[in-house]
Amino acid sequence: MLETTIAAIGPLDQTATAAARDLQSRLTKPAGSLGALEDLSIRLAGLAGTCPPPLPEPAAVAIFAGDHGVHAQGVTPWPQEVTAQMIGNFLAGGAVVNAFARQAGASVTVVDVGVATPLPPAVADGPDVPRPVAADAPRLVEARIRPGTRDLTVTAALTRDEARAAVETGIRVADELIAAGAGILLTGDMGIGNTTPSAALVAAFTGADPAEVTGRGTGVDDETYQRKMDVVRRALRRHRPDPADPLGALAAVGGLEHAALAGLILAAAARRIPVLLDGVIAVSAALAAAAFAPDAVGAMVAGHRSTEPGATVALRHLGLDPLIDLGLRLGEGTGALLALPVVTGAARVLHEVATFDAAGVAEK
Amino acid sequence: MLETTIAAIGPLDQTATAAARDLQSRLTKPAGSLGALEDLSIRLAGLAGTCPPPLPEPAAVAIFAGDHGVHAQGVTPWPQEVTAQMIGNFLAGGAVVNAFARQAGASVTVVDVGVATPLPPAVADGPDVPRPVAADAPRLVEARIRPGTRDLTVTAALTRDEARAAVETGIRVADELIAAGAGILLTGDMGIGNTTPSAALVAAFTGADPAEVTGRGTGVDDETYQRKMDVVRRALRRHRPDPADPLGALAAVGGLEHAALAGLILAAAARRIPVLLDGVIAVSAALAAAAFAPDAVGAMVAGHRSTEPGATVALRHLGLDPLIDLGLRLGEGTGALLALPVVTGAARVLHEVATFDAAGVAEK
Repeated sequence: MLETTIAAIGPLDQTATAAARDLQSRLTKPAGSLGALEDLSIRLAGLAGTCPPPLPEPAAVAIFAGDHGVHAQGVTPWPQEVTAQMIGNFLAGGAVVNAFARQAGASVTVVDVGVATPLPPAVADGPDVPRPVAADAPRLVEARIRPGTRDLTVTAALTRDEARAAVETGIRVADELIAAGAGILLTGDMGIGNTTPSAALVAAFTGADPAEVTGRGTGVDDETYQRKMDVVRRALRRHRPDPADPLGALAAVGGLEHAALAGLILAAAARRIPVLLDGVIAVSAALAAAAFAPDAVGAMVAGHRSTEPGATVALRHLGLDPLIDLGLRLGEGTGALLALPVVTGAARVLHEVATFDAAGVAEK
Repeated sequence: MLETTIAAIGPLDQTATAAARDLQSRLTKPAGSLGALEDLSIRLAGLAGTCPPPLPEPAAVAIFAGDHGVHAQGVTPWPQEVTAQMIGNFLAGGAVVNAFARQAGASVTVVDVGVATPLPPAVADGPDVPRPVAADAPRLVEARIRPGTRDLTVTAALTRDEARAAVETGIRVADELIAAGAGILLTGDMGIGNTTPSAALVAAFTGADPAEVTGRGTGVDDETYQRKMDVVRRALRRHRPDPADPLGALAAVGGLEHAALAGLILAAAARRIPVLLDGVIAVSAALAAAAFAPDAVGAMVAGHRSTEPGATVALRHLGLDPLIDLGLRLGEGTGALLALPVVTGAARVLHEVATFDAAGVAEK
């Protein structure tokens, strides 16, 4: 399944990009005045192979949740149980991702790809938090491959088979969402401790030093930050992940949610559907996807710039400029959701804006 | 009317800001992880005087259109008639601002506050461009004070009385939109040549040199750019606008749309409704509004950073960080509309996100 997905990924359609570039030049606005939105609209046309490209609707957020053996190294002050508890919050509609998804009209699918603790019993009948209407109710996909990764400072986080299973879970979830009509996929993630494997993946795929890519995650103190950087350094020294072997790198220093996100991204690219990336977990997974299939980058839209330094290193490596840069570091898919109207707006311009000729407006 | 509006503007409500800050700290997310959205939500609470603040809905874009006598100096390659032609495009629903407004669910009101040429006869029955549904049809307000400003290199652009009339038109339009239920106002503008008076206003209110604040507008060539900078320099030397006399500065080197936008901003602040600023025309008008009433800045949200250098100088002077920074330089209200979901999302978090206690999620 991974190999057939990779084989289906190709370059942007040059006829459609040329048509979109030409159309942009005839619309009633000064040439270039929509900045990054013009480039984005042209890329969306090339991805879809048609101009104008379809509006990226409806939108589907997939939140992959997993735990991390490296939690034992004290890289975060949050208890591991919070991963499972937040799944309960997502399913009850009480998290920030839910609020933003309701606003954007996006569906939310939560995928337990490797949580370490039991999910709360009352995920479907939770505490007194705002509820989405039934049709928009978040959905849980139970696809736990193992209860969290192993501690990457001691051994590989995953076997190759486990990493492959997680990647293929991501492909399957993407295919289901696309089959159900999704016009764009948004990456979401939940996993206490997951900025540590993200930093390791960014270092592995870009060659950056751990000091450049390790950040404070949810806001750790100086001592924890030093420990975290040391953990990333030790993991890289122990495993020497090969950037040309993305499955091996995901297995050695990644997470189950990272592997699944890489699969989701690959599947979107294979089906020529845009995938809107959230923060550092997403962009570290995107590096793996690009290592599997360089043309997958054509389907990627960087939603926002996380404050995690590894996110900026990864985006630079991928050649992607983020749409939003507001100091977010929450994850869950929140940054991607904030950027969604920009993507939709970029495509909409090619559908709805009049040309100079049609509108009877003089040119300079 | 101007004086009573200014008198009604006051500081943010400290009780509401404190309540919003406290609520942010109890929501199910790491403290500070929503970055600029947290600060914005707190400010919206302080502006409304209640926590959570009302969602900024419905949204209303007011596009003030005017022409500029300085057009005679060759500061732009576009014919002056394009201002009137674009009003036809706005009313037919074919401009980018219409596409973005439909997407955001915002109404569009076009105000002719000083166009120099007749409006196209077929504004309501135009060419074959996409039409909004009737209920959302853009509305035209005819409030022409004079057919364009005078040439600011020769004489004052406006008399004080004309500038006041334009400011009060902006106040009246804002009051009507708010009375009709608008929860947020978005600034729009149209006026061939209007980045020249914008640059002059930014220089006047911030003390910056014309070379720092003059840009290429819709994309002028090097020769036109040099001429435009020289025009701004001559205007400032001739009029020596006093930043402590905003009506005088607007009259000397401003435009009718700038004065009207200053009035709109003041009225929003007086009614404690947020006003989402678009590009350099809006932020130069916002400098005038802040000179009339420094507390008006509390109601201003910077939608985006225009590529015009004067926009960045003005935003810095106002102490505002823009929400979107994507190389836009179109005007019309397009940058404000792209930022609207961010503002709504910031407020929504305080309404819909569960607290740690309510959701049964452990804290660190």
